[in-house]
Amino acid sequence: MVTTPTENNRVLLASRPEGEPTAENFRIETAAVPEPADGEVLLRTVYLSLDPYMRGRMSAAKSYAAPVEVGAVMEGGTVAEVVESRSPDLEPGDLVLSHLGWQEYGVQPARHVRRLDPARAPISTAVGALGMPGFTAYAGLLQIGRPQPGETVVVAAATGPVGSMVGQIAKVKGARAVGIAGGPQKVAFLQELGFDVALDHRSPTFREDLKAAVPDGIDVYFENVGGHVWDAVLPRLNTYARVPVCGLIAHYNATEAPEGPNRVPQLMQAILTKSLTVRGFIQNEFVKEHYRGFQEEVSAWIREGRVAYKEDVVKGLENAPEAFFGLLRGENFGKLLVQVGPDPTR
Amino acid sequence: MVTTPTENNRVLLASRPEGEPTAENFRIETAAVPEPADGEVLLRTVYLSLDPYMRGRMSAAKSYAAPVEVGAVMEGGTVAEVVESRSPDLEPGDLVLSHLGWQEYGVQPARHVRRLDPARAPISTAVGALGMPGFTAYAGLLQIGRPQPGETVVVAAATGPVGSMVGQIAKVKGARAVGIAGGPQKVAFLQELGFDVALDHRSPTFREDLKAAVPDGIDVYFENVGGHVWDAVLPRLNTYARVPVCGLIAHYNATEAPEGPNRVPQLMQAILTKSLTVRGFIQNEFVKEHYRGFQEEVSAWIREGRVAYKEDVVKGLENAPEAFFGLLRGENFGKLLVQVGPDPTR
Repeated sequence: MVTTPTENNRVLLASRPEGEPTAENFRIETAAVPEPADGEVLLRTVYLSLDPYMRGRMSAAKSYAAPVEVGAVMEGGTVAEVVESRSPDLEPGDLVLSHLGWQEYGVQPARHVRRLDPARAPISTAVGALGMPGFTAYAGLLQIGRPQPGETVVVAAATGPVGSMVGQIAKVKGARAVGIAGGPQKVAFLQELGFDVALDHRSPTFREDLKAAVPDGIDVYFENVGGHVWDAVLPRLNTYARVPVCGLIAHYNATEAPEGPNRVPQLMQAILTKSLTVRGFIQNEFVKEHYRGFQEEVSAWIREGRVAYKEDVVKGLENAPEAFFGLLRGENFGKLLVQVGPDPTR
Repeated sequence: MVTTPTENNRVLLASRPEGEPTAENFRIETAAVPEPADGEVLLRTVYLSLDPYMRGRMSAAKSYAAPVEVGAVMEGGTVAEVVESRSPDLEPGDLVLSHLGWQEYGVQPARHVRRLDPARAPISTAVGALGMPGFTAYAGLLQIGRPQPGETVVVAAATGPVGSMVGQIAKVKGARAVGIAGGPQKVAFLQELGFDVALDHRSPTFREDLKAAVPDGIDVYFENVGGHVWDAVLPRLNTYARVPVCGLIAHYNATEAPEGPNRVPQLMQAILTKSLTVRGFIQNEFVKEHYRGFQEEVSAWIREGRVAYKEDVVKGLENAPEAFFGLLRGENFGKLLVQVGPDPTR
């Protein structure tokens, strides 16, 4: 039963971070619950998705999306419940994928949300395995990486919602999957997920471990990390290797370029002599053509047990900033969600 | 009338260069003229093509092709005349595209050479506008760069055999062509060729000049140079820009990585946030599918006056090393050829 709420707790961007964000960059405040206009719905946040791209939105630097304004609610994808509807398409109690940001309640035009079927998959997957992170993996791997049977696919942050999906889809497509993660617990989980080899990038022998793990070289490196992993991967890439680039979490908090020498010439030389394809992308680019196929294929693979996913659920909106800092440090283990309010399906 | 030769002057790789190659890295010697076996032809070099890739062949470092051995004849594409034939497919006096390297005479299997029709185009174009450099431009621009009408294409070393073709084909395809070259004489020539804008990369205001020349940003940057041109281009690339990489002549003589900071993170960040495609290639990759179309299209464009080419002909094999050093310094003006012996068509 849905009651009429009066207070809306929300997390605002208080200031832009220099380097690693801190608690001072956020401010929690209580506002009035907004009222839906014609065609709109009032939504209650159940799950807020925390994702690395949000670090970019905190900065004023030009990127593929506009930054969050200082004083505005932090952006973010949400799974929410309809509290009040002024649209014939939705009614109270409906569960929807929405983009409310870091707050308990929000209003959106009904046509901007998508109704979820809890019978089809747990609703939290709408922001994970069956949502933006899963689609990032699916589209980047299949449209840019194009792994062929028997080829070797390497991915870092491999227990995360993107990386874990990349490795598992690579296996579905008959490729060898090598996953890289931080720490023995995550490495063990990659083995459970069916990765052929799981490596710990914190190991002092990481470079040698990677070399030994890819005796036939690397055909696809799905780049979502950057830093020393990319440095170790580059010499192992095969001729015609493909490198979809969807994230560079190792660099998001950097305040200046790292010490020299400048290795851009070396990177360009590798691109030239090995006929590499290095291709940045944002999943939006592929939505129109491939989103429906993604939903059908991946939900089937989940049902068939060919693809598994792991969630890391933090309770309470007030804990979102801390959880986000941990995400940037690689401390989450699986898809990071903030449970903002009760999940009516559980 | 073809006489039987007895002496064969040739240029050997005497030692591997450290940095910029010097005369000491080459040795000129006189050897006996080889005899063709069954199925082979004895050829006399008319034109030897000098190309930047040869710098790579002088080094032992791993690349897309094996290095020239120390003590072996320097590699290179040639236009040659058949002196003696032991193949039913060729006869004395025939002119062929061949790969004799830096020498006056050589033997090749008849099936490894391609007969040229002097009535169709000047034979020297077989190693230039209608040869490997022209095809590099054609395949890289059209298969990777894919310029659309109204888009902006930028190319450096734009008076060279690759760059000049890139700009002219971009114009044929309805794109805007911005050419970059070194010095006012070359800039003037680019204007003659029909480039929309021609820039001098030696100008102290080069960065600003480039910015002003591309008010709508850059959609295709055909990379054959590297160095400070690439640094200036990167911030001007548009979302979804394509960067075919076929050469990095600015770095070929480098003995160590340039001073820091390390700008690899910055480059990867640009690739990510602008959804760039950076793609290395060697023209061989496209030969099977596109070489015939290239020959037909480009020779038609030349006949129609839509595409022009410029040759820089140095006489005498003994001058090949000096000419090659000048090529690496950007001193040639047009496609660099060594005329090793008389051209029977002139």
